Amino acid sequence: MEATAKAVMPAVSFDTSPDRYRHWKLTFDGPVATLSMDVQEDAGLSPDYKLKLNSYDLGVDVELADAIQRLRFEHPEVHAVVITSLKERIFCAGANIFMLRGSTHAWKVNFCKFTNETRLAIEDASRHSGIKFLAALNGICAGGGYELALACDEIILVDDGNSAVSLPETALLGVLPGTGGLTRVVDKRMVRRDLADVFGTVAEGVKGKRAVEWRLVDAVYPTSQFKQRVATRAQELAAKSDRPASGPGITLTPLTPVVTDTTTAYSSVALEIDREKRMATLTVTGPGPGQPETPEAIQALGDQFWPLRAFRELDDVLLRLRTVEPLIGTVVVKTRGDQDAMLAMDELLLGHAEHWLVREIIHFVKRTLKRMDLTSRSFFAFIEPGSCFAGTLFELALAADRSYMLDDPDQGGAIALSGMNAGPLKMSNGLTRLETRFLAQPEQVDRLLAHEGPFDPREALDAGLVSFAPDELDWDDEIRLAVESRAALSPDALTGMEANLRFAGPETMETKIFGRLTAWQNWIFIRPNAVGEKGALTAYGSQSRPEFDYNRT
Amino acid sequence: MEATAKAVMPAVSFDTSPDRYRHWKLTFDGPVATLSMDVQEDAGLSPDYKLKLNSYDLGVDVELADAIQRLRFEHPEVHAVVITSLKERIFCAGANIFMLRGSTHAWKVNFCKFTNETRLAIEDASRHSGIKFLAALNGICAGGGYELALACDEIILVDDGNSAVSLPETALLGVLPGTGGLTRVVDKRMVRRDLADVFGTVAEGVKGKRAVEWRLVDAVYPTSQFKQRVATRAQELAAKSDRPASGPGITLTPLTPVVTDTTTAYSSVALEIDREKRMATLTVTGPGPGQPETPEAIQALGDQFWPLRAFRELDDVLLRLRTVEPLIGTVVVKTRGDQDAMLAMDELLLGHAEHWLVREIIHFVKRTLKRMDLTSRSFFAFIEPGSCFAGTLFELALAADRSYMLDDPDQGGAIALSGMNAGPLKMSNGLTRLETRFLAQPEQVDRLLAHEGPFDPREALDAGLVSFAPDELDWDDEIRLAVESRAALSPDALTGMEANLRFAGPETMETKIFGRLTAWQNWIFIRPNAVGEKGALTAYGSQSRPEFDYNRT
Repeated sequence: MEATAKAVMPAVSFDTSPDRYRHWKLTFDGPVATLSMDVQEDAGLSPDYKLKLNSYDLGVDVELADAIQRLRFEHPEVHAVVITSLKERIFCAGANIFMLRGSTHAWKVNFCKFTNETRLAIEDASRHSGIKFLAALNGICAGGGYELALACDEIILVDDGNSAVSLPETALLGVLPGTGGLTRVVDKRMVRRDLADVFGTVAEGVKGKRAVEWRLVDAVYPTSQFKQRVATRAQELAAKSDRPASGPGITLTPLTPVVTDTTTAYSSVALEIDREKRMATLTVTGPGPGQPETPEAIQALGDQFWPLRAFRELDDVLLRLRTVEPLIGTVVVKTRGDQDAMLAMDELLLGHAEHWLVREIIHFVKRTLKRMDLTSRSFFAFIEPGSCFAGTLFELALAADRSYMLDDPDQGGAIALSGMNAGPLKMSNGLTRLETRFLAQPEQVDRLLAHEGPFDPREALDAGLVSFAPDELDWDDEIRLAVESRAALSPDALTGMEANLRFAGPETMETKIFGRLTAWQNWIFIRPNAVGEKGALTAYGSQSRPEFDYNRT
Repeated sequence: MEATAKAVMPAVSFDTSPDRYRHWKLTFDGPVATLSMDVQEDAGLSPDYKLKLNSYDLGVDVELADAIQRLRFEHPEVHAVVITSLKERIFCAGANIFMLRGSTHAWKVNFCKFTNETRLAIEDASRHSGIKFLAALNGICAGGGYELALACDEIILVDDGNSAVSLPETALLGVLPGTGGLTRVVDKRMVRRDLADVFGTVAEGVKGKRAVEWRLVDAVYPTSQFKQRVATRAQELAAKSDRPASGPGITLTPLTPVVTDTTTAYSSVALEIDREKRMATLTVTGPGPGQPETPEAIQALGDQFWPLRAFRELDDVLLRLRTVEPLIGTVVVKTRGDQDAMLAMDELLLGHAEHWLVREIIHFVKRTLKRMDLTSRSFFAFIEPGSCFAGTLFELALAADRSYMLDDPDQGGAIALSGMNAGPLKMSNGLTRLETRFLAQPEQVDRLLAHEGPFDPREALDAGLVSFAPDELDWDDEIRLAVESRAALSPDALTGMEANLRFAGPETMETKIFGRLTAWQNWIFIRPNAVGEKGALTAYGSQSRPEFDYNRT
């Protein structure tokens, strides 16, 4: 049975750059960039399928995510992005079905999670960087292709009598449009639920005037006008952007971790794996002395500036962990470094938060921490002497499922808060991690943020900032037991439990996608009606029609 | 494989009354009622398991749901309810594990859905009827037992050195505390997420002072004080209730549907099944002439008053459909009757909405419509001449996934709105069905509510009140095609799609339970780590320990 077999994950790197893209072309025209999809059929991550009709696999989406990221850091002059296709009459056919069919359950789930995060990165760039996205659908736009369009601010569809938008997953594959599709249709574009119901069951989709009337797209234009209308609208969107006119971008250079079978070591991040215990230790080292003091100096440092470098490394290691190390269930999170330097760094960031590059860095730190919230591994923060859980790095402890602080007189105060804990690094639920933690005592958040200086172990425990503070006599036993007992539990139950406990408080479109839509999709992804021998996903493209167990659940 | 087999559902009736209870005792002392759990081991729905230690199956929960309902209608003098146990040192061990282990996937899912609805009915009674609930935990309170306690306004735990509250599902069974447990811990009781994480993984639970400190219970008292403290607190809660002092209750008499293999016929509700097409036609007949005009006359009619009678019948038929007819995927919803009588009925209800019985009736109609929203079948409303989709009954069309209205000159105006569409019948998301429908145009809701008189088919279509309005030439083909094409789709994909499209807009604790928690639980309920040969649920109570596939998903 698939799920009891060892999960097989194709090798994948999250490191790419425009000169290495195989599936996208990124071009520039003043404030408007164009991101054109031109998927190479034979360049999928696996030779088992061909990426026909601009269908995509994880490799295609890694390039898209990279492009979105580079537009933010390398191209501050870009105020609008057109997403379109270089193929005739085809925008995008969505996720490649043969790839999905051949993937393990875990791979499907991780693939969907990453593509969802990429779509949300587009929306984050729109909301927080003033980069407006225009989906220019020059042809058929199906499934994940339409989900990509839904992530854009506006959608223009060519009116050629043939090109339609569609979510054919339910009708053709017996699964959901799970990359935010269903949620964005009713919650973002606010399509009426009965029309969404029809749209979600009609494989051929909706085109022309009806697509506009149903709010599925914003405008349709005949082929003769399409290019010009798209160009004009992109200029208008660029003109409305609030992105500050500012200096040249910085370059995101490749990360160069040293990777062995059990370690992945970057400059400020290291992951050490203990396969026998199915755990890893993730250590983040804080900023050193001699940090820049002005935006100009930050800009000069570019991607070597500590917050950007350290969180790019953290982002990369989290993605590797998800895809390459499925058997590592528990991650112990540690920090090292100088607390004062970390707090000075936070002050620097907050003092220049309006500078375009600093703004980008802060939002990137935010997105990386969200990636951690959404990583289905148990995180335990261990706070020991020499730790640097201050300000931004304390968010790692707040993002962890539990935290243990050694109650040692030498420990001094390894925990401190800063303005970075007070707003800039909000979770998907729209709250800060402190607000989510103290849902029952909102006044406690203000009290803690007003606290002068660091918290020693007793103070931290009393304040509710850590879960436990064992003394030296108990420490070794307690943390060993915590890790061992976690490793004995059902990994599925833990994934479900953590997905429920991590997001207390309000729900947003983002949490609805990861909570409601994703959870239902994961259920469907393992049901025989989709993936069984006669399931719809299995039968697709073969001679046989699916056979369903028609019992409703 | 279980899921491809025909789902086997034990025979179950949702009709009971206190004199027939086998598992609960309902006693009264002035404004305080006591609901005592005393589960009969040998009186489970199936002889395959014994309901030891006050563990429960659906039959036990049907009695609880009945008791909550009767407290609202039959006992207006009750202002507080103590929920406790008659067993020594045991409050409740939760859902019976051997029952869960022996159940099909569909039965597990339906069982959890019903128990979740019962817990929400307790909270609805507290919020809207001023009946305050006090969980008096006189002994061990585990899993579903604690989830029942979480649904109460306050929880008192005996401090006897042994009695603890616990959610041992993850640790012992590899599943979630899915009857609202995880959600209520962090969202209702606002337990800190790291403490909730510990609590959710420790099979033995938490007791004594720590249970109070972690916000898991409101108070603990030693055995010597327990009974007196509970009694005192119950009186205090009763005194704080805003339930109006009012006349005697009414009696909820048994429903007596005429049931054949293909029909279930009540006085105002009829379900007709077409097994070949896997569809059913649900017809609700509106109120007749000669309705009461005063609260006293309504009270005199008791449970024969149309809204209460019709919606009790609708509630019952929805529950039967879920449990007895899993192969019926599509339900066509029709109404019959006199629109003016329906609108007059709505005016009567709204005019006396403060009267205790009318208030109860309105909230019951609301809960029944929510039960429909949460029923995983496709609902299509067919609006034909002679229909009565007015006011309260138009909510059936709004709750449906789609609606088709015959564009026939004779149709007159079969649709009309009333004040009942403007607020009293809110969905789980906290919005009215009109507000949810017109999320994109909030002003349209007010405009439609201000509309004088009924809507003819063209008006209804233009207003967005119906999905389609085919004329007589197209009608037969169009509705036939709609039903046929729905029946061809994967039932799992439809369940997931509907669960996502029906609840646009804000999320509440209630929608979080059914969206996030339930969806994850359903996923886990079909994973080999829980239900496979060596899964934790399968292994429980046997000699063998579970063996997990430790890959994280």
